[in-house]
Amino acid sequence: MEKRRILTADRPTGLLHLGHYVGSIHNRLQLQHDPNNECYFFIADLHMLTTKKEKADIIGSRQAIREMMVDYLSCGLDPQKITIYLQSAIEAIYELNLIFEMLVNVNRLQGLPSIKEMAKNARMDIETIPFGLLGYPVLMSADILLPRAHAVPVGKDNEAHIELARDVARRFNQLYGEFFPLPELIEAEVPTLIGTDGQGKMSKSAGNCIFLTDDAKTVEKKVRGAYTDPNRIRADIPGTVEGNPVFAYLDAFDKDTAAVAALKARYRQGTVSDVEVKERLISVLNAFLDPIRERRREFELEEGLVEEILYDGTLKMQEVGREVIKEVKSLMGLSGTWNKISRLARERKATLAKQPPLL
Amino acid sequence: MEKRRILTADRPTGLLHLGHYVGSIHNRLQLQHDPNNECYFFIADLHMLTTKKEKADIIGSRQAIREMMVDYLSCGLDPQKITIYLQSAIEAIYELNLIFEMLVNVNRLQGLPSIKEMAKNARMDIETIPFGLLGYPVLMSADILLPRAHAVPVGKDNEAHIELARDVARRFNQLYGEFFPLPELIEAEVPTLIGTDGQGKMSKSAGNCIFLTDDAKTVEKKVRGAYTDPNRIRADIPGTVEGNPVFAYLDAFDKDTAAVAALKARYRQGTVSDVEVKERLISVLNAFLDPIRERRREFELEEGLVEEILYDGTLKMQEVGREVIKEVKSLMGLSGTWNKISRLARERKATLAKQPPLL
Repeated sequence: MEKRRILTADRPTGLLHLGHYVGSIHNRLQLQHDPNNECYFFIADLHMLTTKKEKADIIGSRQAIREMMVDYLSCGLDPQKITIYLQSAIEAIYELNLIFEMLVNVNRLQGLPSIKEMAKNARMDIETIPFGLLGYPVLMSADILLPRAHAVPVGKDNEAHIELARDVARRFNQLYGEFFPLPELIEAEVPTLIGTDGQGKMSKSAGNCIFLTDDAKTVEKKVRGAYTDPNRIRADIPGTVEGNPVFAYLDAFDKDTAAVAALKARYRQGTVSDVEVKERLISVLNAFLDPIRERRREFELEEGLVEEILYDGTLKMQEVGREVIKEVKSLMGLSGTWNKISRLARERKATLAKQPPLL
Repeated sequence: MEKRRILTADRPTGLLHLGHYVGSIHNRLQLQHDPNNECYFFIADLHMLTTKKEKADIIGSRQAIREMMVDYLSCGLDPQKITIYLQSAIEAIYELNLIFEMLVNVNRLQGLPSIKEMAKNARMDIETIPFGLLGYPVLMSADILLPRAHAVPVGKDNEAHIELARDVARRFNQLYGEFFPLPELIEAEVPTLIGTDGQGKMSKSAGNCIFLTDDAKTVEKKVRGAYTDPNRIRADIPGTVEGNPVFAYLDAFDKDTAAVAALKARYRQGTVSDVEVKERLISVLNAFLDPIRERRREFELEEGLVEEILYDGTLKMQEVGREVIKEVKSLMGLSGTWNKISRLARERKATLAKQPPLL
């Protein structure tokens, strides 16, 4: 039985926080543990170029790549079970991208809401965005179809991209013969986590994060300073649980759901202090982070281990890529041209080599 | 002294005719004979995909590639002096293309008259053309800049493409450091030749061609049937030389310009028959084509020779491409990331290999 190939990726944005854990890492860990799955995970450094192409950005992302790798591995992403690779080092992605660019129409890309969003985020006009930015959903199709992925667990906001990859696969199969599976979105409801300031999503730019790299003291300090119900100036005032980051974190990380439910009830009644709730949260978060910290120390002690994992995965994926692109070009008839030229040329060389010298 | 690198290319459209000779082959032969030039010539099969992506088209172009190669080589294109290669087999072109796509804005491409023209020719709406067709000028920039060409001899209609390649080079150099020369258009006034029907440009679709592969009898027949001044129903009626294909061919291929001038004068006076003019043209064209025919026979006798030339040139260009893309990625900081990962990974492997086994 063929395994279900699953593809995920991240742009190299650096240190991961609890929001990333809840939003994607947790899901990836579950996917990798299913023996029916064959997981691919890559660091999307080529996608960075669509909006951040300065040399300083590219070099800056080097640190981010390492940080993300250490974070993922410390969380338990297992290179024995999953192929981890660096996008820019896979030659076949560039080749597949150019081929797929022929199979997608301009207006299809211009109609994607994500393109408008990307342009806005990059503070660019939709008319004057780089051609490569308009093409990033095509590059995503190449990313997804290179390992011939069956499924991509992403949020609803990426649905249109998976649909595009499906259309590209369908069009390719139609033109050149059945080859690519039509990738499906695994509707991972990608939950977001509120930031410690209670004002919105946990995000680096908002400065409201608890990072996976934070030590116990830092976690303690951040939790003590976290936003709670502002009306609750004394412990006997009934409080609101909803939108309260402290309870959001307990919901996400405290395995003792009964205890959390009891705490919420007492909070609503005004029979528990913020301090007590936060004490519990501090110990829950540190208990969650401790094994991650332990593994992080191991990865950091082993000089070059993180790089070795990314290196081995990338070499493996280069090989997968070469095989797939070979098949793609063969189906298209492109490699047939080159193969025939090569064969005739080599036969001639062999014949000439066999002939005795004239003198 | 660095040589001047010159790049030319053709889509694989098959058998070449006298119009091609006058329009491009003649110019290429002159360029290759200048020892200050380093010439690159490639068969642009990836560009075919922008408008003809059916598998049958791709396989069909295989024959066309061989026919064009034999034509060019028979005309004297010399693989000792010029690197001849097949575009689709050069991995670095795909990579450079993706990188350059980040450096060009969408509206810049949409504003190119050639894009509208291509869309029209492919019977497509400008809004719904394939993304890869809109991007073909970017691919051309990658074509031109991969061998770091200084000059591209093309017609005026390609001026905007050379300008784009120059902008891409400039932008790259700005962002990542001086690397690409800014390619110049060599304003080869690409002359066109009228067809044998006197109705327009010599072109395969119009069926008004004398092919380089035509044998002496075919040339004779085509010339005898060629359009001349229709008012001239007798040899003593003064005729018109302008727009008369027979004189256009004499102008292009008869080295004895004095004799041609005399013949024109007599034609205008009505003192020469069409038959006499055509007799001269037949012998001029066959004299021009004879050495080409001779070399064609040699190429056809040598099994695999044409393929060997294209194969060797392509391997050479693959190597050039690898070097250039290595430098490009290094300047961008992209390969630095990968090199560091590789180095640390390999160092670790080497260290582990040296350690004595535990038992």
